[in-house]
Amino acid sequence: MEFKKHILDNGLAVVGEVNSFAKSAAIGFFVKTGSRDEIKQISGVSHFLEHMLFKGTDKLGPLEVNEAFDRLGAHYNAFTSEENTVFYAAVLPEHLADAAQLWTHLMRPALRDDDFNMEKNVIKEEIAMYEDTPSYDVIDKARSLYFDSHPCGNTVLGTRQSIDALTAKQMHDYFTARYSPNNMTVALAGNFDWDKTLRLIAEHCGLWRQQTVTRQTKDYPGSLKSERLQKASLKREHICIISPAVPMQDKRRFAASILAAVIGDNVGSRYFWALVDKALAETATMQCESMDRTGAFFSYIRCGSESSQKVLDAVKAIFDDLDTNGITASELSAAKNKILSALVLKNEIPMGRLVSLGFNWVYLNEYRSTEQDIDDVKAVGIDDVNSLIKHFRPGRFTQFILGPGSDTSIQS
Amino acid sequence: MEFKKHILDNGLAVVGEVNSFAKSAAIGFFVKTGSRDEIKQISGVSHFLEHMLFKGTDKLGPLEVNEAFDRLGAHYNAFTSEENTVFYAAVLPEHLADAAQLWTHLMRPALRDDDFNMEKNVIKEEIAMYEDTPSYDVIDKARSLYFDSHPCGNTVLGTRQSIDALTAKQMHDYFTARYSPNNMTVALAGNFDWDKTLRLIAEHCGLWRQQTVTRQTKDYPGSLKSERLQKASLKREHICIISPAVPMQDKRRFAASILAAVIGDNVGSRYFWALVDKALAETATMQCESMDRTGAFFSYIRCGSESSQKVLDAVKAIFDDLDTNGITASELSAAKNKILSALVLKNEIPMGRLVSLGFNWVYLNEYRSTEQDIDDVKAVGIDDVNSLIKHFRPGRFTQFILGPGSDTSIQS
Repeated sequence: MEFKKHILDNGLAVVGEVNSFAKSAAIGFFVKTGSRDEIKQISGVSHFLEHMLFKGTDKLGPLEVNEAFDRLGAHYNAFTSEENTVFYAAVLPEHLADAAQLWTHLMRPALRDDDFNMEKNVIKEEIAMYEDTPSYDVIDKARSLYFDSHPCGNTVLGTRQSIDALTAKQMHDYFTARYSPNNMTVALAGNFDWDKTLRLIAEHCGLWRQQTVTRQTKDYPGSLKSERLQKASLKREHICIISPAVPMQDKRRFAASILAAVIGDNVGSRYFWALVDKALAETATMQCESMDRTGAFFSYIRCGSESSQKVLDAVKAIFDDLDTNGITASELSAAKNKILSALVLKNEIPMGRLVSLGFNWVYLNEYRSTEQDIDDVKAVGIDDVNSLIKHFRPGRFTQFILGPGSDTSIQS
Repeated sequence: MEFKKHILDNGLAVVGEVNSFAKSAAIGFFVKTGSRDEIKQISGVSHFLEHMLFKGTDKLGPLEVNEAFDRLGAHYNAFTSEENTVFYAAVLPEHLADAAQLWTHLMRPALRDDDFNMEKNVIKEEIAMYEDTPSYDVIDKARSLYFDSHPCGNTVLGTRQSIDALTAKQMHDYFTARYSPNNMTVALAGNFDWDKTLRLIAEHCGLWRQQTVTRQTKDYPGSLKSERLQKASLKREHICIISPAVPMQDKRRFAASILAAVIGDNVGSRYFWALVDKALAETATMQCESMDRTGAFFSYIRCGSESSQKVLDAVKAIFDDLDTNGITASELSAAKNKILSALVLKNEIPMGRLVSLGFNWVYLNEYRSTEQDIDDVKAVGIDDVNSLIKHFRPGRFTQFILGPGSDTSIQS
């Protein structure tokens, strides 16, 4: 493994991890923009823009984009979150240069009015589909409730109204402001020729004009609100609870991931034994989402209406016990093993390395090998986790319930 | 990469591919048994038995099984198909021996009556869930229709009736007959110590008693029937069409995969351009399923009721054209690139190698490196694919439609 990096004059960061034993190679464009960078009038524009990049350029129509990736046998896609828009492709090593050239080209899209108007329907269908998926919808609603007026509460997809009202001009302006080379990172991983690929990227992206790009990054401790939305058509209660956690920039993020696994890994966790194993809930998980200068623990629990009060009582008992007694040594050890396995398995392929490499650069301006992450997980002690509990008090949370019932509330 | 194999005296095959550069290791037990090995009275027993193996042994209860995997940080699971039941775990190299020992232990389960009776409900819920998933249900029903009375038409999950009627004694007998060491393969892949692991497996599995195990493997060309089931609650028509293809034992399986990709890959295929791109269908894909001494092309298409006749007409036109003109050189090249990418990406991690290694042994008694598969894909010529079309006539198919409509039928 060899780490390489180069920053073009216009600020575009190019980072690579060359592994000549790998059988594939991956490239990704990481644009540091997402729903938290939107104002209400353009809610959903980041995600909409991600779709529009596949509609092509002055030289390529939508079908030709499709065909170009297809010819390379590329596994390619993109995703948009609250704070990033990422475009990627994994290919055989002999196709990496072509895949890189194709992405550099697509990063300056035509944004045609016709495509823009057509795509509005696709976006609105996607909004409808997610609204029909309660496990997604409840998390989206809980996030808004937790972050209140903080921009991290903005919805990624936008609303039917915001999408209908969005103009092509607004999207153009957003593109110019946010897809600025100094707000983007190109990451490369696997078996590829660094010098050749860097030359190609410099040639195609070197003249992109840079803008001044900012982001509001005030931390926010959560609203502590509690809400329920009754939806008679649902069969199950969907519960999302959110409490503060550490940002990506905080070294304690490894301890925070361990804490989340102890509480809410899908098997063998506190939630598992108290809720799933006791048949009170069908699923109950917790994750730590470390973001840019903020972070939160998200729990998602699904259960029957008849059990929801018992579930909330059991959750309270778990947090009370953690607050008093902390975690145990065997919980720490099992959680570490799980996190280490997941870390190693994910980072075993170039596509996995790409994501780690890209995000470490975006958030930390730092290269981290898998081994460094492994060492940092191993180094977490029981006191590191227990002092996180004392500091962040995960039992003080914001709660949203979506389901057929009407009157469950937590006594706290 | 180094291939290793050893057959124990009782017939248990142990095969391994050691890769000392890998960061993880994987182990799997491949039992050559599935729904095609069941008679009607015990329909679903293979899949039910897969669940029961997680309920533990004389020494371990269900929760202890869970905890044991959990402590290893194992990514573990199992699946049952028409002809295989596979149990696997991926772990860090230092936990491979423990994971191997745990699986060897679980392979001789207690099959407790209490667990058996409790688990019936879980199986019946799974049946209900799949019946509520039309994309799955239509393929299951089409498979039964295609294979008619041939055992490959047997449903994996069984029916509520067969599960209710199943006795613990029937399951015990099936276990003894089918989980015989000479009907099983242990596969190992990634970074592990072959000698040590083999010793451990020999020690724990060497005394398992072997039985005479048989399977009915007559090929079957398909019933050519056409059926529709009207389900007013559905919003969409779900169409499955099936035609004969090559078995796993046939070298032409690479050409058959290419043909399936040309016709029905999810982008850039004949189905894509004629159905999805034209907005006649929302999804339209074809796969080649090569099985033990038989094989079939499966297509799945989802569309609105108003389009279903047009979809069937367009499908007919695709097959008529293929029959007359065959595929093009550029279709061959794009399909090869896609298949090669998928092959390389899948086989880049020990868990992917495990599946290839295990199935190549089960079906072919052969070790095949990823490179051999790559070479065989590359060697396929346009005539190889076109002579498959002439031989198998994919336009002559069995068809099942599940949806709200009532009268669509194909003119053929």
